[in-house]
Amino acid sequence: MNTIGQIYRLTAFGESHGAAIGGVVDGMPAGVLIDADAIQYQLGRRRPGQSDIVTGRDEKDRVELLSGIFEGRSTGAPIGFIVRNEDQHSVDYDNLRDVYRPSHADYTYDAKYGFRDHRGGGRSSARVTIAAVVGGALARQALATMGIKIEAYTYSIGDISLEEPYTYKEGDIESNIVRCPVADKATEMEALIRRVKSEGDTVGGVVKCVITGVPAGIGEPIFDKLSARLAMAMMSINASKGVEIGMGFEGSRHRGSEVNDTWMSNPHDPRGITPRSNYSGGIQGGISNGEPIYLKVAFKPVATLLCEQETVDRDGVDVKLRARGRHDPCVVPRAVPVVEAMAAMTILDAVLLGRSSRI
Amino acid sequence: MNTIGQIYRLTAFGESHGAAIGGVVDGMPAGVLIDADAIQYQLGRRRPGQSDIVTGRDEKDRVELLSGIFEGRSTGAPIGFIVRNEDQHSVDYDNLRDVYRPSHADYTYDAKYGFRDHRGGGRSSARVTIAAVVGGALARQALATMGIKIEAYTYSIGDISLEEPYTYKEGDIESNIVRCPVADKATEMEALIRRVKSEGDTVGGVVKCVITGVPAGIGEPIFDKLSARLAMAMMSINASKGVEIGMGFEGSRHRGSEVNDTWMSNPHDPRGITPRSNYSGGIQGGISNGEPIYLKVAFKPVATLLCEQETVDRDGVDVKLRARGRHDPCVVPRAVPVVEAMAAMTILDAVLLGRSSRI
Amino acid sequence: MNTIGQIYRLTAFGESHGAAIGGVVDGMPAGVLIDADAIQYQLGRRRPGQSDIVTGRDEKDRVELLSGIFEGRSTGAPIGFIVRNEDQHSVDYDNLRDVYRPSHADYTYDAKYGFRDHRGGGRSSARVTIAAVVGGALARQALATMGIKIEAYTYSIGDISLEEPYTYKEGDIESNIVRCPVADKATEMEALIRRVKSEGDTVGGVVKCVITGVPAGIGEPIFDKLSARLAMAMMSINASKGVEIGMGFEGSRHRGSEVNDTWMSNPHDPRGITPRSNYSGGIQGGISNGEPIYLKVAFKPVATLLCEQETVDRDGVDVKLRARGRHDPCVVPRAVPVVEAMAAMTILDAVLLGRSSRI
Amino acid sequence: MNTIGQIYRLTAFGESHGAAIGGVVDGMPAGVLIDADAIQYQLGRRRPGQSDIVTGRDEKDRVELLSGIFEGRSTGAPIGFIVRNEDQHSVDYDNLRDVYRPSHADYTYDAKYGFRDHRGGGRSSARVTIAAVVGGALARQALATMGIKIEAYTYSIGDISLEEPYTYKEGDIESNIVRCPVADKATEMEALIRRVKSEGDTVGGVVKCVITGVPAGIGEPIFDKLSARLAMAMMSINASKGVEIGMGFEGSRHRGSEVNDTWMSNPHDPRGITPRSNYSGGIQGGISNGEPIYLKVAFKPVATLLCEQETVDRDGVDVKLRARGRHDPCVVPRAVPVVEAMAAMTILDAVLLGRSSRI
Repeated sequence: MNTIGQIYRLTAFGESHGAAIGGVVDGMPAGVLIDADAIQYQLGRRRPGQSDIVTGRDEKDRVELLSGIFEGRSTGAPIGFIVRNEDQHSVDYDNLRDVYRPSHADYTYDAKYGFRDHRGGGRSSARVTIAAVVGGALARQALATMGIKIEAYTYSIGDISLEEPYTYKEGDIESNIVRCPVADKATEMEALIRRVKSEGDTVGGVVKCVITGVPAGIGEPIFDKLSARLAMAMMSINASKGVEIGMGFEGSRHRGSEVNDTWMSNPHDPRGITPRSNYSGGIQGGISNGEPIYLKVAFKPVATLLCEQETVDRDGVDVKLRARGRHDPCVVPRAVPVVEAMAAMTILDAVLLGRSSRI
Repeated sequence: MNTIGQIYRLTAFGESHGAAIGGVVDGMPAGVLIDADAIQYQLGRRRPGQSDIVTGRDEKDRVELLSGIFEGRSTGAPIGFIVRNEDQHSVDYDNLRDVYRPSHADYTYDAKYGFRDHRGGGRSSARVTIAAVVGGALARQALATMGIKIEAYTYSIGDISLEEPYTYKEGDIESNIVRCPVADKATEMEALIRRVKSEGDTVGGVVKCVITGVPAGIGEPIFDKLSARLAMAMMSINASKGVEIGMGFEGSRHRGSEVNDTWMSNPHDPRGITPRSNYSGGIQGGISNGEPIYLKVAFKPVATLLCEQETVDRDGVDVKLRARGRHDPCVVPRAVPVVEAMAAMTILDAVLLGRSSRI
Repeated sequence: MNTIGQIYRLTAFGESHGAAIGGVVDGMPAGVLIDADAIQYQLGRRRPGQSDIVTGRDEKDRVELLSGIFEGRSTGAPIGFIVRNEDQHSVDYDNLRDVYRPSHADYTYDAKYGFRDHRGGGRSSARVTIAAVVGGALARQALATMGIKIEAYTYSIGDISLEEPYTYKEGDIESNIVRCPVADKATEMEALIRRVKSEGDTVGGVVKCVITGVPAGIGEPIFDKLSARLAMAMMSINASKGVEIGMGFEGSRHRGSEVNDTWMSNPHDPRGITPRSNYSGGIQGGISNGEPIYLKVAFKPVATLLCEQETVDRDGVDVKLRARGRHDPCVVPRAVPVVEAMAAMTILDAVLLGRSSRI
Repeated sequence: MNTIGQIYRLTAFGESHGAAIGGVVDGMPAGVLIDADAIQYQLGRRRPGQSDIVTGRDEKDRVELLSGIFEGRSTGAPIGFIVRNEDQHSVDYDNLRDVYRPSHADYTYDAKYGFRDHRGGGRSSARVTIAAVVGGALARQALATMGIKIEAYTYSIGDISLEEPYTYKEGDIESNIVRCPVADKATEMEALIRRVKSEGDTVGGVVKCVITGVPAGIGEPIFDKLSARLAMAMMSINASKGVEIGMGFEGSRHRGSEVNDTWMSNPHDPRGITPRSNYSGGIQGGISNGEPIYLKVAFKPVATLLCEQETVDRDGVDVKLRARGRHDPCVVPRAVPVVEAMAAMTILDAVLLGRSSRI
């Protein structure tokens, strides 16, 4: 339930206002050079307080790696890690102890478990994605040895969206706080988030992720298709409500003759062949075909609003709620490294599973 | 890899032109009355040859239940089953032995396994969904004892789509061969599929699925959120390229104040409260809130075209390909029962897992 | 629950008097030449009616392989299989419908599931080991390509036991119906089983299994140690009540200086070193060291007696029971191939998992 | 690999001389009152330095519970925990960096992973059982709410063994440092361990475990029989080489008429029936029958000797080795709480799985 993966597995724990967020990465092959700074860098991209369009909770999010590494390399033993929580303002949540925020997990956790840790959202907080970012950062280091790279960016915020075709170059994504690689769109998106924030409201958006260097032949039919595993990983991120691979929903509006990726001979391609297009998003029949894998993840607007909403308390009595605390007006800029992390873990897991495909 | 689920688990096997498709349902609780006819009914909805807009392969698809049932009830033992293949025309596929169909799994299976059973697409054939339909039909019978119902229908074909708001009543879905509950849209969709078919082309579409009666509190955070498990299940269906829960991608374009489902007191609701809307699609924080769960699945157009396409053979030589055999011009009408089946298995599994939520 | 293994996985189904026993082997690497006769040979070793010291139920136990094989080789797709039941005499079990055999699963199945398929023991019958034998026979074919061999034999029947040291050569095991490789012991064992059978009684025994050719480095610490996985596999066989690796219980009576396997330099050994002894049974720290792996499995006497026993019925009323039907007076001779099969699946699984140990 | 269990799952991490040992307990039902002192008490029973017959490593082994508990009760969220390592003397292991201890995991870890953390045995150290003890202590608290109790004790050390029949009363086990409930045997065992220790040698032994209060009907046929899961759990403990349930190997020497547990009517038993004996050890057909479950685990002598042994280094050169460091002359007294812990986790997991047995 709190474990993801089959060979490369992350087991995560921690609540927003508990002692720490942490986890165990199991199945990391031995011999990978571990760069702790690179893990910290990814946590920094996810960190609250990194800009004025995200939550102001001020956390350093320093990760402590507790095991599984010896003389700089992974040993094959599980890698335990923790990130201490530091800047909880639990008192901000006192008014949520007995109230259900609309569209939040407050009611559903109570329905499932009979009670809940209401402080900061407890286990349902986006803060739990710290564990995924650490697991993903470790996975990236193994993937890098195979030439596999993962990059995500903000594709849309509210109704401001990138429009095909567009191009970008290295560094464009991190050049702005909204993590959109097209400068004028980024500016518009930032303005929208600031406007929404000033109204105590929130807004949704879409993250696009591109994975390059995955060799052909990765993914397990039938139920563990690479597309299925990626979809599960993405939909396990807080606030995600949709995922599509390749053309996704847009592709469903087309004919086969329009969106089939026809093959052509190509002696310069290691495969000997190259597809003329990549509408499939690098996955065919659930298995990678060697083309870049790309996907989109839809995030709903953050449920916690600083403006007043109608709702009920635990006794079912109607109340008005105006949340306190420090909340993101839009989860998307900080979701970008989380999407990358989930993708990294999923791909590494599939690559390792794939080692048993042939005798 | 060919198993899905944690408590209620389907392990599937079989190829399009092998001896049989089959599987094992494990984790069915003891004591469920098993209605073999109801299973056969679901297979009939998935069956090829059921209308002139689907593949003409003529299969009876009779299921044989081999175990796990005694005196009409499930015993708690695994339920093994097979459906014999009968109407293979393997010769139709001789020209595919060494050729890669564009956007099909032909190349990726070869890349993964070194060779493949090319007859009828082998394990990558949509015929493998027979196992899912049986597993789902069994799950439905357990779910029915809890008042949980699952219903899917065709939401769009190509650019012909249902438009909100629309209503339908029982029987409307099965009243037409495209399985769209709005009559005039159904007529348009059928016409489109016939036109596409006549051109040797194919077309995609979207299936919507609605699940009612799921109590609040079902789903396992973090990585086995009900939404994540549903997404994985849907994306494991052949030709699916996208999934969304509730408002999905559309929701990402909105503000929290627009799409939050605010709670109100309601003494007539067993929960004591009712949300004013259901933009969340019945799942909040990965856990059901007691509202109807709804989701959409995007299917790309079938890759196999009867019109000519450019492609390559196994030696990387450019060739022209015009597929033979009996193929669906549009997978959506037959995907409807498959979507239901995957949903049924996922929900039952989550309900059973949920029995351990509290001491 | 009815699946064993992590990469190489068997999911089994079937009851003694149902339509068929069967299963699905998933995770078989592609490219293994499949010898159906070799599978049938193993089933023949497990078959009832093979001699006068085993149950007289007359079954051909013909296996039908339904999928996953193309042109003689495994494709990487799951291999479904069934063995039809043919010679059930369900009427023999009518008197067991409402009576609990002592030390049998009759009561415990009722306690767990609320009712049971009483015919022939239902799912608790030793007949279910057919699926294991098929899964094991397939595993052996993959292991053979790596030079790994598995051989088991009868070590003791009742109080007649092999005594160290003893030697045997190829063919000695199958040269007698009790499957003990030392001829005079085999003769004694057969006589004991016949005597016990004539009294309507049963007797237990021990099977020893030796696995050669496993390279050093196989097994997953901590909880999936090769020893732990082997123990689970063996203890899942009907009637097994004990397992030991290497010296096992005997080793617990010794000092480290007596039973440590000291290493010595050996340029003729591929490892460059060789242990002077193998008290460890080829596994140290849960991981293979390259020496032969050996283990013993204790089987209790078959619970079903043809002589009269006291017991109770479902209403808790004391009754006398004299079982009818055809039962083994001693399960050990037929358990030999089952032990081998469980070992084969476990080793292959561990070998495949081991492919991810290093980057 | 470092996770055990299906519903109630422990994922463990940590090396002997790393920063910490820790883990994540997932699947703990919500609502269990958590007694941190009781966890610490169990760690105290496992702690080094607790007496003069165990390793002198001086560790407080203070556990820090990091998540999953709110206002004293489990929330259903995963419980992360760490125990800092404090008293490592890594320098004691410098001479083991390139030398393989006989019968230890030194060689096998190198063979598997290519290198190893040699300090204190790294991941192969018995120190890793700390995680199991915490996981088990938590499981016991859930089991206690159901009236299930688990108690283990030393059954034999070397050739000094309890002899049937024997009796003991509460407190007898913990009344002596060897944890044998029969006083004169305990005295003999202590003397033996001291003698062995004085010679720089080690000795093995057997732990017996008794589990009471398990209702009938717990355990999952076929491959997850309660006996199979218990065997796996026990064989995953460091230095264990054998396990038997009920009569185990002794039972294999008997006839069915001697060791069948015949049922008799008993209106005072909640089951309405009672067996006249319990040779089965509380498990029949892999499922509990409501009687006490008992099992034995054989531990080999600790491999690390302080007296001189012959062995080889990583280059395959013969060397003499006399280990330094603080090692147990006999693992058994400290293994007692570890056996209990593994049993507790296994039983709780099976009980939770069993909640899905019936509709």
